[in-house]
Amino acid sequence: MDIYYVDGEFVPADRAVIPVNDLAVLRGLGAFELLRTYNGHPFALEQHLQRLEHSVHKMGLLLPWTTAELTRIILETLRRNETSAHSESNIRIIVTGGTSPDFMTHQGQPRLLVLVSEMPRQPEAWYSEGVKITTMKSRRILPGAKSINYLSATLAMQKARAKGAVESVYVDRDGGVYECTTSNIFMFTGDRLVTPGRKILSGITRGFILELAQSLFEVEVRDLTLAELLRADEVFITGTNKGVVPVVQVDDQQIGNGRPGRRTSELMQAMSARAADHASQTTYTA
Amino acid sequence: MDIYYVDGEFVPADRAVIPVNDLAVLRGLGAFELLRTYNGHPFALEQHLQRLEHSVHKMGLLLPWTTAELTRIILETLRRNETSAHSESNIRIIVTGGTSPDFMTHQGQPRLLVLVSEMPRQPEAWYSEGVKITTMKSRRILPGAKSINYLSATLAMQKARAKGAVESVYVDRDGGVYECTTSNIFMFTGDRLVTPGRKILSGITRGFILELAQSLFEVEVRDLTLAELLRADEVFITGTNKGVVPVVQVDDQQIGNGRPGRRTSELMQAMSARAADHASQTTYTA
Repeated sequence: MDIYYVDGEFVPADRAVIPVNDLAVLRGLGAFELLRTYNGHPFALEQHLQRLEHSVHKMGLLLPWTTAELTRIILETLRRNETSAHSESNIRIIVTGGTSPDFMTHQGQPRLLVLVSEMPRQPEAWYSEGVKITTMKSRRILPGAKSINYLSATLAMQKARAKGAVESVYVDRDGGVYECTTSNIFMFTGDRLVTPGRKILSGITRGFILELAQSLFEVEVRDLTLAELLRADEVFITGTNKGVVPVVQVDDQQIGNGRPGRRTSELMQAMSARAADHASQTTYTA
Repeated sequence: MDIYYVDGEFVPADRAVIPVNDLAVLRGLGAFELLRTYNGHPFALEQHLQRLEHSVHKMGLLLPWTTAELTRIILETLRRNETSAHSESNIRIIVTGGTSPDFMTHQGQPRLLVLVSEMPRQPEAWYSEGVKITTMKSRRILPGAKSINYLSATLAMQKARAKGAVESVYVDRDGGVYECTTSNIFMFTGDRLVTPGRKILSGITRGFILELAQSLFEVEVRDLTLAELLRADEVFITGTNKGVVPVVQVDDQQIGNGRPGRRTSELMQAMSARAADHASQTTYTA
């Protein structure tokens, strides 16, 4: 049985509850982060905690825990899940709006939840064959903050799945492309790697890819249009639970030659090496 | 102590909890309704339940309760709160996405929550003096469904309050005006009452106002622009917990002569009479 940290206590997953008058339940108000482990070590914990702090601030919520306190709680939750024998774990951190006396505005203490679970594996074919994504006319509310407001994302994902796609990329009225529902997006034109830098949730995996790409390719962080994306030589998406996934089709249009590209493969290998490096080296002191 | 109905049981408010792996907590996924009582009788229960069914359907959730079952549960929850001696009650109905094994898609049984609480009173001056509202460039995700996704509404409301306003009206890129964060909006040009009919959450109070207005004024349900709104003779907003509230200022601009208008007052009186009628007549059989 997985163990969750809920508002000060460690409890078995099937007994983990929060009050119904928390603003997360009443108003969908909460910030969150999703981490993964490599070889049992949480990956990019500092970066995730930094982003959590940023999200909480943008949403006008409170975060009455220091980074050191959050780190200690997360590592302790992970330790208590050792008996669950996950091959790798997901660590989901949620900071809720807390109990609201008026059912609308947040006035009280937020709640901290840390949910550790077996990390799901994506199909091997995603990486070897590439995937299809769809486009959707929509956008993220408050793009810079990672909130639990996933209604539009959930609906976009349902539509994407119904069309045999694994993700949906948001396209605005002017044909601008920014991000997918739960992934960042990149394209290659020749040896030039391009990814949007504005109006996105800046992914942790995206950050590593940009860092790794600098020594391998020309890198441009700028606005991107759907027209450019469709003409790209290679497209890929990134995310914590999916890593780097080659995209070979957008709606009905094939990208490049319809196969994962060699530059994308190069970045997939660089990312694997970076993760292996992390797995062998990381020690946290709580 | 208020009594809540939570997923099959009646519990004191301070012991009412739901599992943290419900999609309401993980993803802000849930539909809701807010009712009020007049003289202890729930007002427009049938209409609210109809809309709940509609919201649940639009959000792709499930509603495994019949209208008769929902009515029985709501009335029983209200009955168990008789000892709380509310002057009037709010009844908040939430249908969650239910527990999700993959933390993202809904696959299981939704949860039904019925929260009964003392209905808040708005300041008398709102009605006698009128209020200010602000404009905000934003829109509701999935306008037809009443979801717990209130992040943009919460942020808009915070900004409005900081400017001494009680509400914020969404204005789109083309200057179109549709609705406020938690209210519908109307304007009078002479004896002509105008309110948007598209891209809104169709309020229950709005429905009564349209019905009552038919015998008193010329009524137009159509798209509305901010420019028209600012030139209006009278503006008002409606909602379950606020009733009919005259608007005398939008951002920095005064509406009409800056006082609540006589036509708005006429509708406020008609609505009061309608509610009094309800309070004296309604009997539900559960």
